[in-house]
Parts: sequence; C-alpha cells; structure tokens
Amino acid sequence: MNASREVVAILGGTGKEGQGLALRFAARGRPVILGSREAEKGRRIAEELNARLSSNLVTGNTNFEAARDGAVILSTLPYLGHLETATELRDSLAGKLVVTATIRWPPGLDGLPSAAEDLARALDGSTRVAAAFQTVSASSLKKLEGEPEDVLVFADSLDTRREAIVLVDSTGLRGIEGGSLEKTRVAEALTGVLLGINKAYGVKSTGIRITGLP
Amino acid sequence: MNASREVVAILGGTGKEGQGLALRFAARGRPVILGSREAEKGRRIAEELNARLSSNLVTGNTNFEAARDGAVILSTLPYLGHLETATELRDSLAGKLVVTATIRWPPGLDGLPSAAEDLARALDGSTRVAAAFQTVSASSLKKLEGEPEDVLVFADSLDTRREAIVLVDSTGLRGIEGGSLEKTRVAEALTGVLLGINKAYGVKSTGIRITGLP
Repeated sequence: MNASREVVAILGGTGKEGQGLALRFAARGRPVILGSREAEKGRRIAEELNARLSSNLVTGNTNFEAARDGAVILSTLPYLGHLETATELRDSLAGKLVVTATIRWPPGLDGLPSAAEDLARALDGSTRVAAAFQTVSASSLKKLEGEPEDVLVFADSLDTRREAIVLVDSTGLRGIEGGSLEKTRVAEALTGVLLGINKAYGVKSTGIRITGLP
Repeated sequence: MNASREVVAILGGTGKEGQGLALRFAARGRPVILGSREAEKGRRIAEELNARLSSNLVTGNTNFEAARDGAVILSTLPYLGHLETATELRDSLAGKLVVTATIRWPPGLDGLPSAAEDLARALDGSTRVAAAFQTVSASSLKKLEGEPEDVLVFADSLDTRREAIVLVDSTGLRGIEGGSLEKTRVAEALTGVLLGINKAYGVKSTGIRITGLP
C-alpha cells in the first residue's frame, strides 16, 4: 500500500490551519477527513475545499469519526480544550501517528511545557506523538506553491520523527529533524517572534527556512 | 561622517565568532579592533585576518582598549565571565551601542534570562544593549559570500534595534526586527535546536532565513 494514499484525519480541521493543510494534501491526491465539533460544519467546509480544487478527496465529519477513520492523524485543535478532545478520542488514536500543530498560548519563554508535550502525556504512550507546523501560518499553507518554507519536526523517538517528516514532506513543505518533543517549546516561542515580525514589517505570514543543509 | 566607517570593537574578538565578524566588517572596508584578554593575542590574530584580506583594517588590543577606542561595540565574549568583563568595561561602554552575540549555555527552555538580558542589567541603562548573531555560526561568518542568512535583532527600544540592524546589515547578513531583549531567549534556544540539526544532518553550520518578507 502506498503510504502517501493513506487517509489523513485533521482534528479541528475546519479552522484556517486545518483547511490549509487539507488543501495541500488533497491537491497532491491524498484523501483527507476534516474533523469538527459538528459533522455538518465539517461537511460544508470539505465541500468548499473540494470546489476550490475540483476534487472529491476532502470529506468532513465529527472529530470522533475522523479520529476513528484516519490512518494518520494531524491535530490543529485550538489550545483551549485540545487535551480534553484528545483524551476523549484516546481509543481511536491508539497505535497511530498523531502530529500536532497546536501551540500553547501565549507561547513560552517561561519553562512551561509545550502543547505537544501535554498531548503526549495525556495520550500516555498509546500513540506516537510528534509536533510540526507550529511556525507555519495558515496563509502560507493556502498558497499551494508559495516560497519554500521549512517545518521543524519534534518527537521523542527518531522513528516517529522520521514518520512525521514523511507526512510533512508530502504537503510540499520540507520537514526538518528538530529533536525531542520538549524542543517544541522553541518552535512555539519562535512563532511568537514571527508574529512580532509580521507586525513590524506589515506582512501576514512569515515563516522560517533552515540554511546550510545539503 | 559615514557611520559605516566608525570603528567596531569586538570584545572577545579573537574567538571564532569574533574573527568571522571581523573578517566581514574589514572585507567591507570597516576598521575593526579585536579585543582580547591579552593584547599580544589580539595583535597576532588581527595580523592573520589582515593577511587573509590583504588589508590593514584589523587591529588587536586588550578588551579594555578595544572598549575605549571602539565607536560601536560587538561582544562575542564567552558566556562564562561575560558579565564580569562587561562590568569592568562599564565606563568605556557608557553611551555606546553594545550588540552582544553571547549565548547562555546551555540555552534555555527553562524561563531563565538570556545572556543579553543579564548584560543589559549589569550595564544598568548606561549603554544601548542589543542582541544579534545568536543563531549564526562562526563558519557561516567566515564564508564571506555564503548562502543568505538572517540575523534576529533584539533590544528593548525600537531605536536601538534599528541601530543594531544597520550594524548587522553592514556585515552582508540581513538583520530582522526580533522584538524586545527578552526574546533573545528564543534565539538562544533556537541555536540549541540548530546544533541538533547540524548533528542530525552531519553539517557544520545551519542558520535561519525568515520567509514571507517583502
């Protein structure tokens, strides 16, 4: 089975970040389920994305059905409530790769854990948790062929990082080995700096590129 | 007077980072004083850099003389002892722009202040303190025409940030408005992530580029 054809479920997928990711997967031929609190909202936004792409690869449903039916899980759940939702979905997430883009807010210079670390703790070893897309804005995601941008990928096991990097690469961005899940704090804090840069320069969506790689 | 011809003094300038910065300034026609604990070492390394550039723009001296004679100050002092040295030089630094590249080690996910914040506190309002070059490796600096790389610049006042950005830009790198001095913690922690990336990819000098700017 071609891994890149596995269904990606996006929890909280009707938000801007989730929509941007769904567009990128579907534009590259991959089926996506948008999870939402309300199935109807999930379906409506899925149809909007399909119309934009002239495709039928995006479907919408509740977060519960999305978690159950997705082979791979991306979370763009908002920080407020992300742990409660993930905990409710625990059985459906067990054994799967869960890549979270959720950012602790306000982001951290203060020694507190990142949203990704909290998620891994809440799921308690039953899933492979990675963090990615923290620094990538929704509007960068929606520009399907924008300026090359990198995505720092964090997880405690090298295998999980590699698996998540394959997922990131399949969106057309470049996944970079960022290190252990704890270092997601750096990506969260960097996102705070990028938002300040947006404001200082009057732009909407700065991101990062790692220089010096082969 | 052309500001870009003002003498730059680099405290701790005989280390690799200081040498890389000195090369970049002198290669663009700007006089540099390398400060060192030993004047003799400063002079020797200044001569090596002059030989490499076929120039006579680099001189070497003690940190004390460098701080006194520099119009603008860059600090690449090692973390261990940087505050003691800066405190000793306090009178010479008063009223000047001091841009520090020093990184707290190990860099921080823990809520502790950055080296730059400590420096500003030690100098107690008598100088304009900015932070820059945290994420830039010495080997990137030594490649005078390497891959374009950005430098996050932090200071508590907008005027100081702008002044420091002009200094950074004059090295051929691009200075970016990073925000208040406290955010230097993010650049320090990001440097820790970059060192992990170097290791993961078997390279020597990754850095960052900010995407999405005009």
